[in-house]
Amino acid sequence: MKLKPLGDRIVLKPIEAEETTASGIVIPGKEKEKPQQAEILEVGPGGVVDGKEVAMTVKKGQKVIYSKYSGTEVELKKDEKVIIVRQSDILAVIEK
Amino acid sequence: MKLKPLGDRIVLKPIEAEETTASGIVIPGKEKEKPQQAEILEVGPGGVVDGKEVAMTVKKGQKVIYSKYSGTEVELKKDEKVIIVRQSDILAVIEK
Amino acid sequence: MKLKPLGDRIVLKPIEAEETTASGIVIPGKEKEKPQQAEILEVGPGGVVDGKEVAMTVKKGQKVIYSKYSGTEVELKKDEKVIIVRQSDILAVIEK
Amino acid sequence: MKLKPLGDRIVLKPIEAEETTASGIVIPGKEKEKPQQAEILEVGPGGVVDGKEVAMTVKKGQKVIYSKYSGTEVELKKDEKVIIVRQSDILAVIEK
Amino acid sequence: MKLKPLGDRIVLKPIEAEETTASGIVIPGKEKEKPQQAEILEVGPGGVVDGKEVAMTVKKGQKVIYSKYSGTEVELKKDEKVIIVRQSDILAVIEK
Amino acid sequence: MKLKPLGDRIVLKPIEAEETTASGIVIPGKEKEKPQQAEILEVGPGGVVDGKEVAMTVKKGQKVIYSKYSGTEVELKKDEKVIIVRQSDILAVIEK
Amino acid sequence: MKLKPLGDRIVLKPIEAEETTASGIVIPGKEKEKPQQAEILEVGPGGVVDGKEVAMTVKKGQKVIYSKYSGTEVELKKDEKVIIVRQSDILAVIEK
Repeated sequence: MKLKPLGDRIVLKPIEAEETTASGIVIPGKEKEKPQQAEILEVGPGGVVDGKEVAMTVKKGQKVIYSKYSGTEVELKKDEKVIIVRQSDILAVIEK
Repeated sequence: MKLKPLGDRIVLKPIEAEETTASGIVIPGKEKEKPQQAEILEVGPGGVVDGKEVAMTVKKGQKVIYSKYSGTEVELKKDEKVIIVRQSDILAVIEK
Repeated sequence: MKLKPLGDRIVLKPIEAEETTASGIVIPGKEKEKPQQAEILEVGPGGVVDGKEVAMTVKKGQKVIYSKYSGTEVELKKDEKVIIVRQSDILAVIEK
Repeated sequence: MKLKPLGDRIVLKPIEAEETTASGIVIPGKEKEKPQQAEILEVGPGGVVDGKEVAMTVKKGQKVIYSKYSGTEVELKKDEKVIIVRQSDILAVIEK
Repeated sequence: MKLKPLGDRIVLKPIEAEETTASGIVIPGKEKEKPQQAEILEVGPGGVVDGKEVAMTVKKGQKVIYSKYSGTEVELKKDEKVIIVRQSDILAVIEK
Repeated sequence: MKLKPLGDRIVLKPIEAEETTASGIVIPGKEKEKPQQAEILEVGPGGVVDGKEVAMTVKKGQKVIYSKYSGTEVELKKDEKVIIVRQSDILAVIEK
Repeated sequence: MKLKPLGDRIVLKPIEAEETTASGIVIPGKEKEKPQQAEILEVGPGGVVDGKEVAMTVKKGQKVIYSKYSGTEVELKKDEKVIIVRQSDILAVIEK
């Protein structure tokens, strides 16, 4: 069973804060917009979204910093939480 | 008797939480935007919606994750509640 | 005496809840957006509305589910209340 | 002395509730948007309004139902109150 | 010393309520949008304003009804208060 | 050291109220939108701003009335405060 | 490990207030919009952002005044905090 996101939506697997610290990145909490690190699981097809052409520029497997503010949490299986965001909620790709 | 949705609207039959758990998906409650699993009953024709061309990319019979936030509940028959949403309120299609 | 709606506006004759139950449809109350069943009495000519071309896709005599949220009530004669809505406030046509 | 409205604005002479009842139309008060019956005194030239071409579709002398919500009251002479609205605030023309 | 307004802005000299009564026009106070009578002192050049072409349709010397709601008061000299508004804040020209 | 503003932004040197009175202009305080007199220090290049072409119509050295509401104060040196605004925040140029 | 910003986003390294004073610039706190001095670490590719073509006009290494209001703080390593903003949040480039 898997999720196929629509339009410019992206399915993310969040990387927990503990894991984040281990890899050297710590993202401090912020009230209005809580940024987080995640891995991309699925990328929507893009196309016309709200009357505007959107090209997808991120790929499955990339690690990203995203703004959790407008995302939606879904629990696929027990303890397997994913987040569905729009591409515009992804701030940056993390390269090593 | 059936509902023919206008424009980019879609008629959904919500899948109850109990049923959801059985199939292995649990969607945790969230205050502002409560996502839910549903089956698509009817799909509007799309076309120009609010001055923008909208193409319908989902189909009758698909199971989807949707954002219940702006949907409207209608009870067709006793205990037969459906939800009318816009296509943009559908986050992802569930594939098996 | 009759009302000729302007632009994308539509004159609706609401169908009361009692009547609704009789025909097998019950629409539960909702706080922010109260959907209701109605019959279309008059349809505006469409055309350019707020700078966007609007084509009218509903017809006089159709029964519809509409979102009462932004409609305006007018009492043409004693106990003959009609509602003026925009076409985008109509969610679905009811077919039998 | 008279008012020449600019753009898509329209000068209305409101028809009082008493008068309204006499002609068979009663418009019940509503909190957020108070609709009212009025006669059109002057119609603006239309043209480009807020970057969008607006064609005027109503005429001097017509009786209309309008939404008083964003109108502005002006008292030309003692007890001669007019209302200046945009054409989009007019919901329907009353025909006999 | 004088003010040259930018874009679609207009410099107005307000006509006091007392003076207004003398000329037969009384504008009653309103909470959200206080309309007022004024004489046009200076008219901006128009042109592209917020990405939209604006043509100026009023002239220096005209008396107008305006919506004071978004205007800005400036006191050029002692007791010589002017108001700077956008053309869209002018509702109608007063003709005699 | 100097500031080169981006897009349609402008660097202003505010003229103090005392100085203002001396030159004959007094600008009374207002709650929501505090207008002020200033001299233009630097003008951005204009160009496409938020998807719209903006042409700069003011020049370095001009004295202007501006709306302080959305400006940002920066202190370049001790007691050398400048304000960065958008061109649309400038209401009028003061000519002598 | 480094961050590659998406679209019109920019990664900034904030310059602390103490350092700022040393170089002669002091930016006073403001409630709604706290401007700050920073060095540009990474610049996104620009392109179509929210349906509008955005050209990047700033470069890596430039010192800028930015509006911290909508930025997102990320801590790459211990005590290495960066800020991700949109180009439109950058008010001016500092030249020496």
